[in-house]
Amino acid sequence: MKETIENKIISLEKKALERWNQGDPSGFLELSANDVVYFDPFTEHRIDGLEKLTQLYETIRGEIKVDRYEMINPKVHCSEEMAVLTYNLISHINNDTVRWNCTEVFRKDSNNEWKIIQTHWSLTKPKLNT
Amino acid sequence: MKETIENKIISLEKKALERWNQGDPSGFLELSANDVVYFDPFTEHRIDGLEKLTQLYETIRGEIKVDRYEMINPKVHCSEEMAVLTYNLISHINNDTVRWNCTEVFRKDSNNEWKIIQTHWSLTKPKLNT
Repeated sequence: MKETIENKIISLEKKALERWNQGDPSGFLELSANDVVYFDPFTEHRIDGLEKLTQLYETIRGEIKVDRYEMINPKVHCSEEMAVLTYNLISHINNDTVRWNCTEVFRKDSNNEWKIIQTHWSLTKPKLNT
Repeated sequence: MKETIENKIISLEKKALERWNQGDPSGFLELSANDVVYFDPFTEHRIDGLEKLTQLYETIRGEIKVDRYEMINPKVHCSEEMAVLTYNLISHINNDTVRWNCTEVFRKDSNNEWKIIQTHWSLTKPKLNT
């Protein structure tokens, strides 16, 4: 059971990520639950709810173009109802790379579909201007 | 049931955080499961397992002194077996403040105790040196 959930969760994430990398945030939006909460390095506070996340993502639709990505060492902790996916990500954009830490929490809904209820993106070892 | 779990989870986190703020990482270490995974802004990769997290935390034991903290808008998504706590944190250190995004995932173990299986700390809107 555990292995099946792991594969399912990683596959869902990769599909959404591949759409994201082509400028299409709808993969993640379709995969997220109504009560999703969200952090990234550019928001002042946690974003609460799919409606607000949709508003945020619509501002960057079409803006992102990642040539190639590496999902590093994905790991899934799971129970029957919830699954936690963590991984490091390298995004290759032109000749540049961006390194990310990612945590996604999925919950199985009443239709037995896994939906994201928490997303946390942060930069790996950001070079801070102090 | 939901409200009880929420209060329990937030209380566990606050107790560990208050010890952390006095330089004592043992609160978080005692609260973490053997298979905990961990991100913060200063690590090159995800840290896997309590043993490695302990090694990391022992290097900063006694080094941290937070005068006052504000846990902003804590939220808990929970099932019977797992709970996801998210919040923004402001740490006041002397006359400075540091703002954090935090995600903790807890799992109920075989003794009915809640243990952290995933910690993700990141800086809120870090000022990047690009």
